[in-house]
Amino acid sequence: MSDFRQQALDYHAEPTAGKIGICLTKPADTARDLALAYSPGVAEPVREIAADPDNAYKYTAKGNLVAVISNGTAILGLGNLGPLASKPVMEGKALLFKRFANLDAIDIEVKHRTTEEFINTVAAIADTFGGINLEDIKAPECFEIEQALIERCSVPVFHDDQHGTAIVTAAGMLNALEIQGKDIATAKVVCMGAGAAAVACMELLIKCGAQRENIYMLDRKGVIHTRRDDLNEYKRLFANNTDKRSLEDVIEGADVFVGVSGPDVLPADALRLMAPNPVVFACSNPDPEIKPELAHRTRDDLIMATGRSDYPNQVNNVLCFPFIFRGALDVRATAINDQMKVAAVEAIRGLAQEAVPAEVLAAAGVDNLAFGRQYIIPKPMDPRLLPRVARAVAQAAVDSGVAQVPMPDNYMA
Amino acid sequence: MSDFRQQALDYHAEPTAGKIGICLTKPADTARDLALAYSPGVAEPVREIAADPDNAYKYTAKGNLVAVISNGTAILGLGNLGPLASKPVMEGKALLFKRFANLDAIDIEVKHRTTEEFINTVAAIADTFGGINLEDIKAPECFEIEQALIERCSVPVFHDDQHGTAIVTAAGMLNALEIQGKDIATAKVVCMGAGAAAVACMELLIKCGAQRENIYMLDRKGVIHTRRDDLNEYKRLFANNTDKRSLEDVIEGADVFVGVSGPDVLPADALRLMAPNPVVFACSNPDPEIKPELAHRTRDDLIMATGRSDYPNQVNNVLCFPFIFRGALDVRATAINDQMKVAAVEAIRGLAQEAVPAEVLAAAGVDNLAFGRQYIIPKPMDPRLLPRVARAVAQAAVDSGVAQVPMPDNYMA
Repeated sequence: MSDFRQQALDYHAEPTAGKIGICLTKPADTARDLALAYSPGVAEPVREIAADPDNAYKYTAKGNLVAVISNGTAILGLGNLGPLASKPVMEGKALLFKRFANLDAIDIEVKHRTTEEFINTVAAIADTFGGINLEDIKAPECFEIEQALIERCSVPVFHDDQHGTAIVTAAGMLNALEIQGKDIATAKVVCMGAGAAAVACMELLIKCGAQRENIYMLDRKGVIHTRRDDLNEYKRLFANNTDKRSLEDVIEGADVFVGVSGPDVLPADALRLMAPNPVVFACSNPDPEIKPELAHRTRDDLIMATGRSDYPNQVNNVLCFPFIFRGALDVRATAINDQMKVAAVEAIRGLAQEAVPAEVLAAAGVDNLAFGRQYIIPKPMDPRLLPRVARAVAQAAVDSGVAQVPMPDNYMA
Repeated sequence: MSDFRQQALDYHAEPTAGKIGICLTKPADTARDLALAYSPGVAEPVREIAADPDNAYKYTAKGNLVAVISNGTAILGLGNLGPLASKPVMEGKALLFKRFANLDAIDIEVKHRTTEEFINTVAAIADTFGGINLEDIKAPECFEIEQALIERCSVPVFHDDQHGTAIVTAAGMLNALEIQGKDIATAKVVCMGAGAAAVACMELLIKCGAQRENIYMLDRKGVIHTRRDDLNEYKRLFANNTDKRSLEDVIEGADVFVGVSGPDVLPADALRLMAPNPVVFACSNPDPEIKPELAHRTRDDLIMATGRSDYPNQVNNVLCFPFIFRGALDVRATAINDQMKVAAVEAIRGLAQEAVPAEVLAAAGVDNLAFGRQYIIPKPMDPRLLPRVARAVAQAAVDSGVAQVPMPDNYMA
């Protein structure tokens, strides 16, 4: 086993197993402390919540608590390994929520037979939390699951594999198009992949101005078109009335390629067919749809983004999910709606257009970052993301009427 | 509102809401840390768990994680106020698990219509955890719920209102009987109350040697007897073939009174009827079945225990649950079985028979504690409870064949 792989195992196992634990946020040393925290003092907040359920936000950790929930049917790029195998990923997500936005997140892995059972289980426990992050749930069930839970739960429900990916992709994409002198309203987009991330990305690009008929989506069988009879209802949203069947057919003259599929599915010859000043987002992780070195050798007018941290323009969901939940929970939004998602897109893309402070450069290990082909999206550890994105999302929640409390005074000041 | 009640509310609300949060147990500062914790390093423990589910204990927090789960149908003495209102109590339980046994506990409140829905919900999420503590679930549903979950879950499931109360009560009771010169095999017991704690207490006393026909249980309607047709299956376990109907009828000549009901239901005149050297456990909290001052004025040969910290002999579940879970989880017991419960009883009662170290006296605010009428059970903050009880429970798990790993070397040394 490689050195890195062993280090990853050791990191998870030593000196204790796992990555997260519980800590006490109030004193618990003396008998007095415990009389306030438990018997008999705990009867007081119980009564207050029974009198008014909103008091749960005042007297319990609910308002800062996110559940990271998975059934393990689409773990990273490893597939359906089941709920227990997903636990390190879900703990990792909780670690990132805490590290980037000081949100308390706990992971829950769900064993179930039917989709309905999964939905019922999550709906039954939802009020424990301030928000729910669904993770690593395969398409197409994830669409039905998320939609049902959004309807049934009074806390925000957000499938990050769909919308987090979409938001970060859209933010980078809009900047890339701007730099390349293209207009999203006329841009021709090829999307390789037709799962959760692909569907959500394309729908969000449409909300940002892309035309549905200018988007060509492919799955493993090729172009998704209206003559196919094997399409689920989500793929059908992207079935064009076209005779084009292969990647080469649709990528000719395309402005944008979005890969949310697997490694090396975009050959250099296909990249050559793209329009001048193309944009390629090769998001398959860890191995992108085309190696960046090959892509840049093939097209010197290219903007490229990948999911990897060792290349410029890393599309990483951590640019979004901690901050969109922070903003949503801080105004007790009942949902993370389209206005909040678009606000996040705008906040993330706008940040990349600004000068980068010295400490961010230092943390990124570079001398300079300026808005341009090599820098279309903020770096994951940019500390400005938290105040910028959370504030924009909270404001959008307030403006769109889903916030239950006003933005706090001096919020993210 | 009284000063104390306001302090309890302030404790829960300030400076932040609630009592528990999440902390990171591994480094998460640098890009390298995050590459090990999340992408791409997290794929390694995922693969290991997919290959062998037991690896979840090696690479995740599962082995130290307890879920505190309620539906809020029997919150403290406040009744059925629903799941959200139970959240402060469940957070408090998690606080106690951490404080006393360094277990990581998270609370889950479950909304459901039928008992089956509750069972299905908990069973679906059970593998997330190393153990499940059910709390504040009303009788008689709690019996069916606990039994079903024990059958369906491969982690221990333990309803503390039943068994924690029973274990601590039995430990104190066996010591009290010994001091009073009585034999549990012949002791006549009156139990006022017929809910979860009552049924579990009496069943455990029987496992410790009490005779079922020597136990008289009363509910709100009076003595539980075989001529009643309104008894659920759990009360029927204690229906004696008797013509006695009232408390006064059955308490005459009784050796033991156990109250798990409500305040002031044991009149002084009834106490007078008890046998010489009686034992009264008046566990209703915060107001016992008889005020201790009145009880001691009435009978000078009495041993009395209550649930209150401001009288001697406090019967408090915190003497048990953190430590029984600690012992169970440390040997990965698949259940908390009768042998482990009895081992906990013996460990707790044995500790009270030993000399008390100076620091425990200091923490309890007393000059002396010696085994006798005023000291039949350890004080809740006695630090010897953790090693003593956890070790006994772990050993019992190993001896009874439910431990999946051996006791660690130098366990609780």
